[in-house]
Amino acid sequence: MIVELVSTGTELLLGQIINTNAPFLATRLNELGFSVIYQTTVGDNRDRMKLVLKTALERADLVITTGGLGPTQGDITKEVTASLLGKTMYLDEASAKQIEQYFATRRTCMPSNNLRQAMMPEGARIVENTCGTAPGVIIEDEATGKIIINLPGPPHECSAMFETSIVPYLSERFGFQGAIVSRVLRTYGLGESALEERIKHYILSQSNPTIALLARSGEIHVRITAQAASEPKALQMIHDLESQIRPLLGEHVFGIDEDTIEMSVGKLLLEKKLSAALAESCTGGLVTSRITDVPGSSRYLTGSIVCYSNTVKMEQVGVAEEILAEKGAVSRETAEGMAQGIREKFCAGVGIGITGIAGPDGATADKPVGLVYIAIDGPAGTNCYEHYFTGARTDIKNRTALAALSHLRHYLLTI
Amino acid sequence: MIVELVSTGTELLLGQIINTNAPFLATRLNELGFSVIYQTTVGDNRDRMKLVLKTALERADLVITTGGLGPTQGDITKEVTASLLGKTMYLDEASAKQIEQYFATRRTCMPSNNLRQAMMPEGARIVENTCGTAPGVIIEDEATGKIIINLPGPPHECSAMFETSIVPYLSERFGFQGAIVSRVLRTYGLGESALEERIKHYILSQSNPTIALLARSGEIHVRITAQAASEPKALQMIHDLESQIRPLLGEHVFGIDEDTIEMSVGKLLLEKKLSAALAESCTGGLVTSRITDVPGSSRYLTGSIVCYSNTVKMEQVGVAEEILAEKGAVSRETAEGMAQGIREKFCAGVGIGITGIAGPDGATADKPVGLVYIAIDGPAGTNCYEHYFTGARTDIKNRTALAALSHLRHYLLTI
Repeated sequence: MIVELVSTGTELLLGQIINTNAPFLATRLNELGFSVIYQTTVGDNRDRMKLVLKTALERADLVITTGGLGPTQGDITKEVTASLLGKTMYLDEASAKQIEQYFATRRTCMPSNNLRQAMMPEGARIVENTCGTAPGVIIEDEATGKIIINLPGPPHECSAMFETSIVPYLSERFGFQGAIVSRVLRTYGLGESALEERIKHYILSQSNPTIALLARSGEIHVRITAQAASEPKALQMIHDLESQIRPLLGEHVFGIDEDTIEMSVGKLLLEKKLSAALAESCTGGLVTSRITDVPGSSRYLTGSIVCYSNTVKMEQVGVAEEILAEKGAVSRETAEGMAQGIREKFCAGVGIGITGIAGPDGATADKPVGLVYIAIDGPAGTNCYEHYFTGARTDIKNRTALAALSHLRHYLLTI
Repeated sequence: MIVELVSTGTELLLGQIINTNAPFLATRLNELGFSVIYQTTVGDNRDRMKLVLKTALERADLVITTGGLGPTQGDITKEVTASLLGKTMYLDEASAKQIEQYFATRRTCMPSNNLRQAMMPEGARIVENTCGTAPGVIIEDEATGKIIINLPGPPHECSAMFETSIVPYLSERFGFQGAIVSRVLRTYGLGESALEERIKHYILSQSNPTIALLARSGEIHVRITAQAASEPKALQMIHDLESQIRPLLGEHVFGIDEDTIEMSVGKLLLEKKLSAALAESCTGGLVTSRITDVPGSSRYLTGSIVCYSNTVKMEQVGVAEEILAEKGAVSRETAEGMAQGIREKFCAGVGIGITGIAGPDGATADKPVGLVYIAIDGPAGTNCYEHYFTGARTDIKNRTALAALSHLRHYLLTI
C-alpha cells in the first residue's frame, strides 16, 4: 500500500504556516504498516491542485489530502477532488445540521457561507468532524480501485478525524499490513553527544530495531523502531533492546512515548502523597502552567505565586528583605527563600522557588542573562541548582521550566 | 534565482519531527525576491542524499540544506555535499576553538565527538553559529557557478544563522532581486467566515497585493503581500490596501506582523500607567506566563496567584467563602471576586480573575467542560465574560488565555 500525502494551501507553499499534518500522518501511517513514499505541497489553485492529485493517483494507491475544506472561497479541495473523479456536488442535509449544531453549542450565529462545508461529492463517504465544522470525505474510485481521502487542515481536527474514523476505515478496508512499532524513551539531563556515547555500541550495530536520537525542545528522545510480522513480535523486539539500553541511561529516562516530565512529576507527587506550591519569578507562571497541563493536577498542586516584583517576593512569599538587599533578587539565597516561603505559606509538601534573568535586559557584570537559580524545599531539606542558559527570552523560560521540573523529579525520587 | 530547499533527516521523512525550517526559509527567501520552487525531504542516507542534492543542483541555482551538521554518526550533510562537489574535508582550527568556547560558557565539558562539527569541506566559507555548536557552510561550485549552503537543523540556530550571515551573503553575491513584501494584520474575536464577509470585496478583486486569511492558534491573520520593483513601492501598495480594509476590521486588529496580543496589552498598560495582577485558576499561570514573555513586562506586571484550590482562592486571593459555597468555584461571582481580590492584595491598577473547567473531568449537569469566566476589575469597574470553549485540556487553556488577553486589551482601550 503506497500512500501519498498532499498538503494543500498557498500558505504552506509560501511558508506562512508550518505543516504539522504531514508528519503526524506519516508517523501514524508508518506505524500502521502503510508506506508514505511521497509528500507534496500545493497551493489553492484549481489547475495545479488537480494536476498534483492526478499524479498522486497514478503513483499511489491511497492519497490523503489535508486542508481546503473550510468555508471560504479559497477552500477548494473537495471540489477539485470531485471534478478529477467526475463526481457532481450536492448539499448534504445531515452535514448541514451538524454544522448548525456546532455553532449552537458555542452559542454563536452561523455565517451562511459555512454551509459550503456541507457540499459533498456524489457517492462519497462523509466523515464527521467532532472538533470543528468541516466534515471529511472518503471517495473510492470505482474505475481504478484507488482512494482519495480529504481531511481538514486544522491539526487537531485532522488528527482527531484520522484516529476516530480513518484508522477504523483503513483496517476494515485493507486488513493488517504488518507491524512497524516505535517506542520513544524521553530523557533529560544528558546532551546528545553524551547520550550517544553511552549507547554507541547499540546505535552502530542497529538494523532492526533501529535507534534514532532526536533533540526536541531541550529533551533528547531515543526512538526504537521495530518491524515484524505481528505487533506483539515487534513489541517484544523493542522490549529486548530497551531492557539492554535502559540501564545505560539510568534516571535520565523520565517517560515513554507521550509521557511528559510534568506527568512524571505528577505521578511521583501522588505516590509520595505530597502537594506542591511554586514561587516563580523569571518563568512567570510557566512551570505551574505546565504542571496544570496534566488532568487531575488539582490533586497535588496547591497553587503558586508569580512574584515578579521584590515587594511581592517579600510580602506575599516571605523572602527576607536583607537577602534581597544583600544577595539580590537573582541569587541562591533568594531562590531558597522563595521555595521555603511558598511551601510554608501554601502548607505544601514541597516548595519550588525559581529566580533568574530571562533577558534581554537585566544582566550585571557578574550575573549574565540566562543565569537561573532553582530551589526545592521539602522533607529532604533544601536543594538549590545554578544554571547558565542561552537563547532568546522565551528559550530561557522554556529551558528553566524543563530544568525545574527535572530537578523536582529527581528530588522526589530521593525521598 | 531558483532556490531548492532540501530538508535532511530520517526523522523528518518518518514524521517524527516537524519541519519548521522549510517554511521559515521559504517565507524569508520569497520576501527577498528569491523563488523557492522545490522543497524536498531526504533521510540520513549517503546515496539518497547525494542523489537528491545532485538533482537539486541541476534544477536550481541555489540549494539550501538544513540538518545533519551535528556531532553524531548520523550527521552527514557536509560530508555528502563535499563528496558531491569533489572536495576533501579538513579540521578547521578556528571552528574547533569556537565549539570548545561554547561548552566553556555553559561550564560543561565538551564530548570529543563534538569535534566532528569542525570538519569542513576544502574551499568552503565557514559560517559562525552564534546559538549552537555546529558552524554552517557555503560552497560555491566553480564549474557551474551554483551554490550549496548547509545550515544547522535546530530551528533557532537555522534562523539566526540565516538572518545574521546568509542574508548579507546573498545580497552581496546577487544584489537586489525585486521586492515581495508582506504585512500581517493580526486579529482576534471575529471568526474566519465573519472576517471574510467584511472584506470579501477586496479578497475577490485581489491580484497585487494579494490577501490571504490564515487561522492560527485562535487568531485570524490577514496577510497582505505586494510585489513591486522596489521595497518602498511595495510598502506603499500595502499601505494603500491596508488603509481601506483596516476600518472594516476595527478594534479586532491587535497588532501587525510579529506583534502578539500580550505585547499590545503591555503597551496599553504602560500608556495608561496601570499595573496588572492576575488570579488564575483553570489557566494555571499560562496568562501570566504569556504576559511575561514580553521583555520589560516587570514594569507593569506586579504578580499573580495561581489558585487551584478553594483554600487558596479564599485565604490568598480573598474570595468570600459564601460565594464559593453558593455559586461554586466556576461562576461569574467567583471570577469577579478573584479579580477584585487580587487587584487589592497586589495593589495593582487592574485585576484579572479566571476560573473555568479545563477538563476532561470536573463537568456538572449545568456546567460543561470548557465553561470559563474571565473577570476584569479596574478603574472602569468590574466586567465579566462567559465563554464555552471546546477541545482538549490544553486547547481550552490556550483559548482561555487568548480570550483573557483580548478582554484585558478591550477593557484598557475603554479607559
